[in-house]
Amino acid sequence: MTIAGIVFDAYGTLFDVYAVEALLELHFPTKGKAIATRWRDKQISYSQLRTLSGHYTDFWHLTADALDYACAFEHAPLDADTRAALLGLYERLPPHPDVPAALQTLAARGLPLGILSNGNATMLAKIVEAAGLTSLFAHILSVETVRKFKTAPEAYQLAPEAFGHPAADLLFVSSNGWDAAGAAWFGYRCFWLNRAGAPPERLDTPPIATGRSMNDLLAYLAGA
Amino acid sequence: MTIAGIVFDAYGTLFDVYAVEALLELHFPTKGKAIATRWRDKQISYSQLRTLSGHYTDFWHLTADALDYACAFEHAPLDADTRAALLGLYERLPPHPDVPAALQTLAARGLPLGILSNGNATMLAKIVEAAGLTSLFAHILSVETVRKFKTAPEAYQLAPEAFGHPAADLLFVSSNGWDAAGAAWFGYRCFWLNRAGAPPERLDTPPIATGRSMNDLLAYLAGA
Repeated sequence: MTIAGIVFDAYGTLFDVYAVEALLELHFPTKGKAIATRWRDKQISYSQLRTLSGHYTDFWHLTADALDYACAFEHAPLDADTRAALLGLYERLPPHPDVPAALQTLAARGLPLGILSNGNATMLAKIVEAAGLTSLFAHILSVETVRKFKTAPEAYQLAPEAFGHPAADLLFVSSNGWDAAGAAWFGYRCFWLNRAGAPPERLDTPPIATGRSMNDLLAYLAGA
Repeated sequence: MTIAGIVFDAYGTLFDVYAVEALLELHFPTKGKAIATRWRDKQISYSQLRTLSGHYTDFWHLTADALDYACAFEHAPLDADTRAALLGLYERLPPHPDVPAALQTLAARGLPLGILSNGNATMLAKIVEAAGLTSLFAHILSVETVRKFKTAPEAYQLAPEAFGHPAADLLFVSSNGWDAAGAAWFGYRCFWLNRAGAPPERLDTPPIATGRSMNDLLAYLAGA
């Protein structure tokens, strides 16, 4: 298998969206995990819902809306300072520990690397810079330009355009089962980075490979 | 306010989707609630995901897929007989206790009543018949005809076409926050039947009214 480049999802795949849990737990003892989980689930749900209904708002505002909902659901009163601190954290979520070295290995092989994310361009620039990874990516692509979130085909089309290669020649890597399915439906080769050890999605589009970590991705590419 | 008819969502709004919990608990002790919740959440997620990506499958198969996923997630091994029994139950989910009398009251006023649901036509015919409610509805509409689930505009368009009135003259009633938002975005007047007491959705489309039960809907209509 030869591939022309690798396209990574950002949130959940490269960056740890649950790193917010500690700060949530500090402010809302015993509720940190529940709020973090609901925040993330609602963020995904709102992105899909708004795209289905044709009512886009940028990912920054959507993420804030999802936080507000999650705190209300868990009866966790969110003051303005805490809200700002939590959202600020979202701009510098840490990369998963296996990410930096694996990206450096891939980049050293001369493979063009990219990000294709629901996040808006400012969020993506900040989070990648905070992790010191900016120089490793040839393309950092935000759905902001098409005003539709994944799994809309218009969103997935951004990487083939930027890389100058059809989706079938690109490997799409996502930790999110719904994103992996959407990318495979669109036509990418797809590696499901199943960090959570979730069961396979019951959708008629299995990934071509699955692993638990970026090291599994390296092993897959070495063997492919 | 004069309205030309009332359009009800089916699952969750008229019929109790969590009535499956008892049978799940019988087969998978201590896990009934977790599986029932994940089954429902996954069913909604798959319906939106498939519509976003243009990969429709009918709601019966989608519901079975969601059940399989939920059981796998909760490490609950699902044999063929139990699976068939659970899916069979889905064809005769009981109406919420406040539903039959309220629908009779509304029908007696001569207001045309309808259902607009993600369920396919066979599922809807069976569940309404099992509850003895068939004669109360002028229209039972399935998104099966447009092969897109809510909140796609093509799905919401079915009721204005069937009723012969624009969405702005119809009252849409749903217990699902995402469905209420989608219907309001589309142009319906919208009553959010917030059975679960959930916080308001953080979307830029509040319902015109909210209540906890069908009796609240009757009170709203009496006062409007």
